[in-house]
Amino acid sequence: MTQQEQKDHGALRVTATQAAAHVDPARLLHAIAALARFGARDDGGVDRPALSGRDLDARRYLIERAHALGCTVTTDHCANLFIRCAGTEDLPPVMTGSHADTQPSGGKLDGCYGVLAGLECIEALNDAGIRTRRPLDVVVWTNEEGTRFQPGAMGSSAFVEPALIDRYRAVSDASGVTLADALSAHSDAFPSLATRNETQAAHAFIELHIEQGPQLEIAGRPLGIVSGIQGVRWYAVTCTGVAAHAGTTPMPARRDAMTLAIDVRADIDAFAKALGQHDTRVTFGRWSVVPNSINTIASSVTFTVDFRHPDEAVLAAFDQQIAQCAARPDVMLEALFSHEPVGFDAALLTRLGEAADALEAPTLTLTSGAFHDAMYLAQHCPTAMLFVPSRDGISHNPLEHTDDDHLVLGTRALAHCLATLCNEP
Amino acid sequence: MTQQEQKDHGALRVTATQAAAHVDPARLLHAIAALARFGARDDGGVDRPALSGRDLDARRYLIERAHALGCTVTTDHCANLFIRCAGTEDLPPVMTGSHADTQPSGGKLDGCYGVLAGLECIEALNDAGIRTRRPLDVVVWTNEEGTRFQPGAMGSSAFVEPALIDRYRAVSDASGVTLADALSAHSDAFPSLATRNETQAAHAFIELHIEQGPQLEIAGRPLGIVSGIQGVRWYAVTCTGVAAHAGTTPMPARRDAMTLAIDVRADIDAFAKALGQHDTRVTFGRWSVVPNSINTIASSVTFTVDFRHPDEAVLAAFDQQIAQCAARPDVMLEALFSHEPVGFDAALLTRLGEAADALEAPTLTLTSGAFHDAMYLAQHCPTAMLFVPSRDGISHNPLEHTDDDHLVLGTRALAHCLATLCNEP
Repeated sequence: MTQQEQKDHGALRVTATQAAAHVDPARLLHAIAALARFGARDDGGVDRPALSGRDLDARRYLIERAHALGCTVTTDHCANLFIRCAGTEDLPPVMTGSHADTQPSGGKLDGCYGVLAGLECIEALNDAGIRTRRPLDVVVWTNEEGTRFQPGAMGSSAFVEPALIDRYRAVSDASGVTLADALSAHSDAFPSLATRNETQAAHAFIELHIEQGPQLEIAGRPLGIVSGIQGVRWYAVTCTGVAAHAGTTPMPARRDAMTLAIDVRADIDAFAKALGQHDTRVTFGRWSVVPNSINTIASSVTFTVDFRHPDEAVLAAFDQQIAQCAARPDVMLEALFSHEPVGFDAALLTRLGEAADALEAPTLTLTSGAFHDAMYLAQHCPTAMLFVPSRDGISHNPLEHTDDDHLVLGTRALAHCLATLCNEP
Repeated sequence: MTQQEQKDHGALRVTATQAAAHVDPARLLHAIAALARFGARDDGGVDRPALSGRDLDARRYLIERAHALGCTVTTDHCANLFIRCAGTEDLPPVMTGSHADTQPSGGKLDGCYGVLAGLECIEALNDAGIRTRRPLDVVVWTNEEGTRFQPGAMGSSAFVEPALIDRYRAVSDASGVTLADALSAHSDAFPSLATRNETQAAHAFIELHIEQGPQLEIAGRPLGIVSGIQGVRWYAVTCTGVAAHAGTTPMPARRDAMTLAIDVRADIDAFAKALGQHDTRVTFGRWSVVPNSINTIASSVTFTVDFRHPDEAVLAAFDQQIAQCAARPDVMLEALFSHEPVGFDAALLTRLGEAADALEAPTLTLTSGAFHDAMYLAQHCPTAMLFVPSRDGISHNPLEHTDDDHLVLGTRALAHCLATLCNEP
């Protein structure tokens, strides 16, 4: 490092520390409570489907706040919102953000926290009088949850792979409204939003999110540096038997589809755990039994398998073993979905570690078990994620909670990291 | 036995053998095909809900045929039909019959066979020129299947315990029609039917039915002498866990309701088989999983237990063990239904055996695993059942089938037995 570089480096560190220091806890917590009013449930949770009237109201609130902060707001073909705090140079932006749609009985934090922490970082930079070299974009990705329109993460995946939008536009929600209809309603609601015009890839994307699992709480660490996202395999296993009378059919004469399904499930469970060891996540979440009658032996049982692991080789071995396992009479296997593990950018993980160090915050490096918009952004630009703890690991639930101190600390770490990245050449 | 008794006995045997001999295979098989046209399904099955328009049409066919045979037809408070072939003396009748309603995708034989075989026995007695001492009543019991109105066996249970009708009349079908409405429609359709007026209990009830199970087929015997009906216990077991994210929740931190349910099911299965040995019938037929989502660990699983056994003591021990099994955290047990085993009348079983011997037909003595109207009639008068084989044990299915030879043999045995019983003093 030359003397000039050392000086620059020192100045950057001071800037980043100032940005973090200007995060205002009361303002952040107020914003979280304010956004949660759009679609508030009686039980304290939030129900805000993507591009619903409630979501449009929430977006109006965010856009108005952005304008009040002196930001510009643009949108794109999937109604993602880009709230830009201008830089001093014409360089690709640093991006942060998450999503603002929720599960039907979701909490206040899943997604919204990342968006509102991003806005708080802009407030903090403004309050600290910091102008960064690069623009900072706080992004609101459309329909991450995938509960109104399937699949989830439509906004971020269509941002990264624009051709996907043609397929997405034809998707209907439960009442027959297509995504195309919902995107038109969005345009009508916000006619003055310009279309984003950015030819170069972003410099970086950092997504701050609640963990939605118990690992930080168990480890007693307030910050999680997310090294990547587990790969996943979704399968449906169908076991066939013969429906017969529960009273008249002797046990040896039965071909009970449920008995077979429970055996197959036990086999899959065993080799999943043997293959994946302590990083295994295997879940048999959905069961459909035919005829599902108290006095009839089941003729058909279908159950789903959700297997996740950070190691591509383990996922491949799982594919092989489940195919072997299903190669027996009366068992049929259907692959529903798969995604390879995503490893986040090493340089960005270092930046996040530096931010945590500057705040003297203990960290845990972990893999995300849940999908996030960052899973797709990683194909677009250097990407990483930062987690804060979830009480009891609970998420997708009105009881979702993160301590205020942790929400503030996560936002300070984000501000530190963004300030550093936005001043990178 | 005095000489006169021996002579009477010999005459009775001759009469019974003549009755059996006059059973006309073509007429019986034609009647089965004719009745199956009311509610015929495209797949060869029958869909004839109790007291539906199709059932009224079927009843009209049966009543017209009865009148053509010189029988009287009466009815009662639950629309049971009593087709009487008069006796020469004023004695309580011998009863036979079964039901004419079907499962939604039922076959041609379940219930109908017993009714039509009864009518064929009257034809055979007429053709043989036999007048019996006692009247013979062929009964069509209302709503045995219980698919339109719950519970099943309404007609036979209300016949035996008349007070039940008040509760039954208020029961609605899926479209809101009450049994009271349906009974009115039945009265309107058949205004000239007299109400049955019988003050004494019947002399005997014999129900001929298809086995609906595979035991006769496996044993290679064409006739089953049914010594009784298994007792039954129906329970619902609810296991509680905590819904959590399939990707973010480490295996040791999970409380998966499905994992617990499968463990509890295995325990129940094990002690059910240990208690009941080879007579055990245990079925876990209905499963309900919440939230039943591919990527969420189950928070609640409810499954049903159907346990049947011919021995009251085994059923009582099962009640005790399942209660103990459910006395663990996160498991809740609900008793849904129970019925004690029914033992049929020893003298009638002897008569059935004599009928089979006279026809040189090998028999198997077995317990019925299914419920039948005879289960209730056994509280009213000496009762027994006779089974013919079901191909592959299949029933409640358009594929339900019994070989013609077996249908004819069963009817001959019934004719033999009824002729004997109807001439008993």
